[in-house]
Amino acid sequence: MSDFDSGIPSRLKSYREKVSDSLESYLGSKKGKTYDMVNYHLGFNGEGSDGNLQGKAIRSSLALYATEALGGDPNEALPAALSLELIHNFSLVHDDIQDDDRTRRGRPTVQYKWSPDQAINAGDALKDLSLLVMLDLSRDGESGKTLEALAALSEYSLRMIQGQVLDLDYMERRDVDIDSYLEMISAKTCALLEGAFHLGGIYSSAGEDELEKLISFGRYLGYVYQIRDDWLGIWGQPEESGKSALSDIEEKKRSFPVVYALQGGHGEELTRLKELYYSEGKLGEDKIEEVKEILEEIDASKKTNEWAEKYWNHAVRELHETGMADWAKTELKEFGSFLLTRKQ
Amino acid sequence: MSDFDSGIPSRLKSYREKVSDSLESYLGSKKGKTYDMVNYHLGFNGEGSDGNLQGKAIRSSLALYATEALGGDPNEALPAALSLELIHNFSLVHDDIQDDDRTRRGRPTVQYKWSPDQAINAGDALKDLSLLVMLDLSRDGESGKTLEALAALSEYSLRMIQGQVLDLDYMERRDVDIDSYLEMISAKTCALLEGAFHLGGIYSSAGEDELEKLISFGRYLGYVYQIRDDWLGIWGQPEESGKSALSDIEEKKRSFPVVYALQGGHGEELTRLKELYYSEGKLGEDKIEEVKEILEEIDASKKTNEWAEKYWNHAVRELHETGMADWAKTELKEFGSFLLTRKQ
Repeated sequence: MSDFDSGIPSRLKSYREKVSDSLESYLGSKKGKTYDMVNYHLGFNGEGSDGNLQGKAIRSSLALYATEALGGDPNEALPAALSLELIHNFSLVHDDIQDDDRTRRGRPTVQYKWSPDQAINAGDALKDLSLLVMLDLSRDGESGKTLEALAALSEYSLRMIQGQVLDLDYMERRDVDIDSYLEMISAKTCALLEGAFHLGGIYSSAGEDELEKLISFGRYLGYVYQIRDDWLGIWGQPEESGKSALSDIEEKKRSFPVVYALQGGHGEELTRLKELYYSEGKLGEDKIEEVKEILEEIDASKKTNEWAEKYWNHAVRELHETGMADWAKTELKEFGSFLLTRKQ
Repeated sequence: MSDFDSGIPSRLKSYREKVSDSLESYLGSKKGKTYDMVNYHLGFNGEGSDGNLQGKAIRSSLALYATEALGGDPNEALPAALSLELIHNFSLVHDDIQDDDRTRRGRPTVQYKWSPDQAINAGDALKDLSLLVMLDLSRDGESGKTLEALAALSEYSLRMIQGQVLDLDYMERRDVDIDSYLEMISAKTCALLEGAFHLGGIYSSAGEDELEKLISFGRYLGYVYQIRDDWLGIWGQPEESGKSALSDIEEKKRSFPVVYALQGGHGEELTRLKELYYSEGKLGEDKIEEVKEILEEIDASKKTNEWAEKYWNHAVRELHETGMADWAKTELKEFGSFLLTRKQ
């Protein structure tokens, strides 16, 4: 069992299985090169596949979990949750092209196994399938809710893309501070987590006020998730995260520790860090080590975790204001504590 | 006035203006880098922009035109038609990356003006906007029709992507014949034209049988359009088509004249054509000329036009079976004759 599995409430894990099984039964047997790429990426076929959905399916599981915790019927929310999962996966396939990543979840990426051009198509197909799974499987549902969920998901998906645009943009800019970093991850990462709780609200008929609290909880959870992810990108163990070691530094990503150091550092360390990050091209191995040393001098590891904790405290405040059942509040609090210290 | 403008029925032209104005008012004033790219591509801002939608908007105009010709209300179909237009445009932005095209409609492509990575995002954003424009603008419409149109558009969009997958795949294969070519363009090109007439059917409440005729007309129109497009890619005037001269040959695209020649040619010409097309890398200038000479030897120019005519005859047969008004049948027949001989 992976570290991440051990930190997930068991009810969330069972929803993840439901998502995996439902997607496999919707997509797994479809044929042709487009579906080969799609099913390979999802983990339903090809080398290293065990027939289950790869990845944590955290967003879709949370959507079903929230629906139950709010007194709704998770089966009614299932098509929208599957849609959310495919939206997330379409973004991963395109992200792997943009980051030139060779592996994802320990397997060759679509762009590396086929080609970047075909990976563009595979991501595009996943996007259309995110709609089709929703429309096909919710034919018996209330069309008002289906349209509401579709509109919400499209808004979140667009915001996620706007976050990707900023993320790429930041790598060429010299003025990225913590505020602009938060603006970027609020779009890139938080949007789909807000979407998960928003769906929970739609399928439990939550009112406007409660929807806002749910969305806000999703947003803070997204901050915690991404800031810790950025920490792991530098101080995590590569064999555990499944990412290549230190690629965030190599690519000069404006991840939280770096943004913190560029804003909060001073003296020689700051000057040298700027020299390294504002240079052309990727950073070589010795320079990656140098960046790590500078970040440690500036105390960026500890501060990064402190910022994640700060947002987790915000999240807990919102959580208590939602109408989720007590068992869910308790489990989500444990889940949050786990996210703050997760190793992968 | 361009050659294409002169061949379009005036009613179709006025729908094109409606599409342009509606999209401009929905998107034109939105801010941020994502919208900058989107609006630049559409022609609403940036260098070489006159504030109008670039491109022929043929699919969306035909959807509105068909709705009117079938006795429906084009205003009711407008959100779906705009959605169709944005789906087409999302595919163009991604296609320009895959084909490494530097110009589109006489202006730098998004991938060239920003970067291929950002163009992936711009295309993705256009895809989400294709949904949002539909959902935002059809809030007062019948939700049943909205869901029906969304499902149809998603199916066509997915088929278009499957066509793109085949198109890229074919460039690495040696067994592409006319049948497999038709399978590819039926997906890549015909899908969205089928979609245009399908939308006309949805918004005029056509029955199942009539829908089939409409879709079938759209498909044959797609064959005609693409086969002539392939002809133009070799024998068209670059200043008129807006494409770089002979890039189809340079890239060794399996366009109709080439597929015809590979299947129908023989002797020395065929051997040499295979040598050229089954080699690695792009073709240089002298080899492009050689390919042109071989194609002329094999009579591929004339045969290409004959195939387009054959499909136009099929189209006309279907057209007569649809319930479109007589004025529309007459105009669409003129339009078809124009498509067969268009210069751009």
